[in-house]
Amino acid sequence: MALPAPVQRLIAELTKLPGVGEKTATRYVLFWLQRSPNAMKDLADRLADAAGSVRPCLVCGYVAEAERCGFCEDPARDRATVCVVESVADVLAIERVGEYRGLYHVLGGVLSALRGVGPDHLRVAGLLDRVAGGEVREVILATGADAEGETTALYLARALGDRGVRVTRPATGIPMGSSIEFLDAVTLMRALRGRKEIGP
Amino acid sequence: MALPAPVQRLIAELTKLPGVGEKTATRYVLFWLQRSPNAMKDLADRLADAAGSVRPCLVCGYVAEAERCGFCEDPARDRATVCVVESVADVLAIERVGEYRGLYHVLGGVLSALRGVGPDHLRVAGLLDRVAGGEVREVILATGADAEGETTALYLARALGDRGVRVTRPATGIPMGSSIEFLDAVTLMRALRGRKEIGP
Repeated sequence: MALPAPVQRLIAELTKLPGVGEKTATRYVLFWLQRSPNAMKDLADRLADAAGSVRPCLVCGYVAEAERCGFCEDPARDRATVCVVESVADVLAIERVGEYRGLYHVLGGVLSALRGVGPDHLRVAGLLDRVAGGEVREVILATGADAEGETTALYLARALGDRGVRVTRPATGIPMGSSIEFLDAVTLMRALRGRKEIGP
Repeated sequence: MALPAPVQRLIAELTKLPGVGEKTATRYVLFWLQRSPNAMKDLADRLADAAGSVRPCLVCGYVAEAERCGFCEDPARDRATVCVVESVADVLAIERVGEYRGLYHVLGGVLSALRGVGPDHLRVAGLLDRVAGGEVREVILATGADAEGETTALYLARALGDRGVRVTRPATGIPMGSSIEFLDAVTLMRALRGRKEIGP
């Protein structure tokens, strides 16, 4: 006797989530079923609410409730600096630091020959348009330090090369708290090449 | 700039799931947001569907689409045997084996003095009613082999003691694939006490 069909369909939908297999999805659904008859309805309403009220910002691709997101509308943010990231999650990570005061540009992924992701699948044209607007002075290419992130940064650096903006990339090196012994060779090489003088 | 309020409310709702913290909940929500504008709406519909169409079986507490679940309605199941389990997930685990052909009784938890869970919080009265019906010959107490599961089984065994049914409990012993070296003392002790003669 399997679970009723509507429950199975729900489980199947949940297995699409990153890192969620059938076992975890089933656990989630049984938890909701057990909690209360209305717990699932509540969650359904929350989901519908969120789905109906947010969309990608037309300028930068971050999550917005109107045409533009809170960053793009915030007069306190430095409009001369744009930090290019792969995903909304990256924006959240950078905001957690509380250091950066500029705007963002969410690409929505990285270039990947393997997965057939080209510039047209990402918010690349939008980035070039923003830079063409003239207000931007610096573009920080904060894509990942893996092969695809590096390729994407290189591609964007070239595309932005002749537009009179400063193009930068966050420093690579030894992450805090790690011992030299267990570092991979590439990180260690880059850390050594990028070494800096320290005070007297 | 935090995420919009409806998105934050959704994340907060998801952190109620077992094993899901804010980080995982955020990852789930961003995945839905990124997938497509309608992915979240689809999931909301699936949830509302499931929430609206299932409820606990009035007899045994398993997930049902009508008053009684598929097990209780199935004429092919052995109505003389009732397997008492803590949760719906336990039923699924036993069904996966494909061995058991009787009915179930989902308690909805275990007795716990610590958490203030008494017999009235579980489907105990319903179990006694079923047994009083006269059709049941054997009750298998398949609660967990931990302290609370054992206590619950003991409590039920006593409550069922004078009702003329056979009350059993699944065997405890060495789980398949494990080496003696790493077994806990209680399991090993029980396995030794429950030793059986093997063929010539």
